[in-house]
Amino acid sequence: MNSPRNMPSHPIVLCLGGHDPIGGAGIQADIETLTALGCHAGTAVTCLTVQDSRDARALHPVQATVFRAQAEAVLDDVQVDAIKIGLIGSPDLIGAIGDLLAAHPHIPVVFDPVLATGGGTDLAQTGLIDALVEQLLPLTDLITPNLAEARRLSGADTADDCAQALTDLGADAILLTGTDVIEDDAHVINRLYSANGLSRQWQWPRLPHSYHGSGCTLAAACAAHLALGSDLVEAVARAQHFTHDSLRRGWQPGHGQHLPWRRP
Amino acid sequence: MNSPRNMPSHPIVLCLGGHDPIGGAGIQADIETLTALGCHAGTAVTCLTVQDSRDARALHPVQATVFRAQAEAVLDDVQVDAIKIGLIGSPDLIGAIGDLLAAHPHIPVVFDPVLATGGGTDLAQTGLIDALVEQLLPLTDLITPNLAEARRLSGADTADDCAQALTDLGADAILLTGTDVIEDDAHVINRLYSANGLSRQWQWPRLPHSYHGSGCTLAAACAAHLALGSDLVEAVARAQHFTHDSLRRGWQPGHGQHLPWRRP
Repeated sequence: MNSPRNMPSHPIVLCLGGHDPIGGAGIQADIETLTALGCHAGTAVTCLTVQDSRDARALHPVQATVFRAQAEAVLDDVQVDAIKIGLIGSPDLIGAIGDLLAAHPHIPVVFDPVLATGGGTDLAQTGLIDALVEQLLPLTDLITPNLAEARRLSGADTADDCAQALTDLGADAILLTGTDVIEDDAHVINRLYSANGLSRQWQWPRLPHSYHGSGCTLAAACAAHLALGSDLVEAVARAQHFTHDSLRRGWQPGHGQHLPWRRP
Repeated sequence: MNSPRNMPSHPIVLCLGGHDPIGGAGIQADIETLTALGCHAGTAVTCLTVQDSRDARALHPVQATVFRAQAEAVLDDVQVDAIKIGLIGSPDLIGAIGDLLAAHPHIPVVFDPVLATGGGTDLAQTGLIDALVEQLLPLTDLITPNLAEARRLSGADTADDCAQALTDLGADAILLTGTDVIEDDAHVINRLYSANGLSRQWQWPRLPHSYHGSGCTLAAACAAHLALGSDLVEAVARAQHFTHDSLRRGWQPGHGQHLPWRRP
């Protein structure tokens, strides 16, 4: 809608996601990640949650009209360089998100399909999954599921088959993370797929704890690096570095999972 | 409720405030400020807003039960080292906030009384002002009004009289900011008062723009430095430095006010 009129300028990522009071996940993960990587975050809240470092106890979806007005306030005021989608939490919001993405087809979209909390609480009913596959995947440049999420979204089983199914459903690229796959006790393998199949993979030392907000951090960092001008492979590589560093420096402030420490 | 079981540890500030999608004010200002100063933010949302860098167009207060559950989730899980209060936006929440503060009397409380947006929209009805003066001021360690806010809260006129009235109403200390007072075109004078009167004042070069979220930044930085262990005068001094630096590096991403650039 406009271009910045004054220097300095900074890339802006619009983050659509949930609010987590303990600050490990959700829009706080996005804000901290984008800030650390030299971008600015605009945020529209899909869902308020009651959660701590152990688990989510309640979800309170935001009205679609309020959510949409928040997102449009940002898109109408500033130049948005990437959009990141996290927890949706209500089927009503999927249509609103689809409309927003369709109205801004040139902004790259990174989609972290949050289907369960770190503590294991299921966040997505089947109806929500069908709707997001149908309405959001065709508008997604990069989706960042773990294997469990990829299986639920695609109905397939192996990593390769899930990725193929998700590109068939319309996503341009899949970063399939391997923290939930114990194929190697000592390592996590993340794989990047395009419609042509596996394009790159990375192996990381497996860290000793469970982390609250690691997936949010990774997807936000991918969006940040796309907004900063990296191509897809470079953005995904740099985002993994940032995420691994944040988790390695993670800490346990309470009774549950560790929180990433997202700093430059 | 507990102490961290693992090193490393970081001070935690619980921020009670509004959500601003454009990311200049509200809990994003708190999160960015606390992150930059080496603390972690927990947040409970009082109010969703629809706003951009020009002004707020709508306020959507959060249900008191949801807000309270968010704040209690943080307070029950981690050790909170300071509490910062910003936009409240609904009289229903004042009782909930009063209960939270009363249940944790040893946690220092910094209160930024947000009564209007940067764009000038009034956010507080008279009933809300009476309730927060009566129920929150006696539980406040530091309140950070500008002169217009101090006048509305106290009913007094001069800086000294406002400060005296606010301490009489129960606040331990007042940081009365002078950005809205043109007593000197070239400078902003901020004054710190205790029940004994003026204790310190600071003079800053007046910056050329209007900033969205400057008051949130200042109050969050005061809370951060209290959480880090500074005494009141040192916390207020350091917070002003951080805020001035953030504003000096500010930028104009859209059609309205400049946003602070809150980085270490």
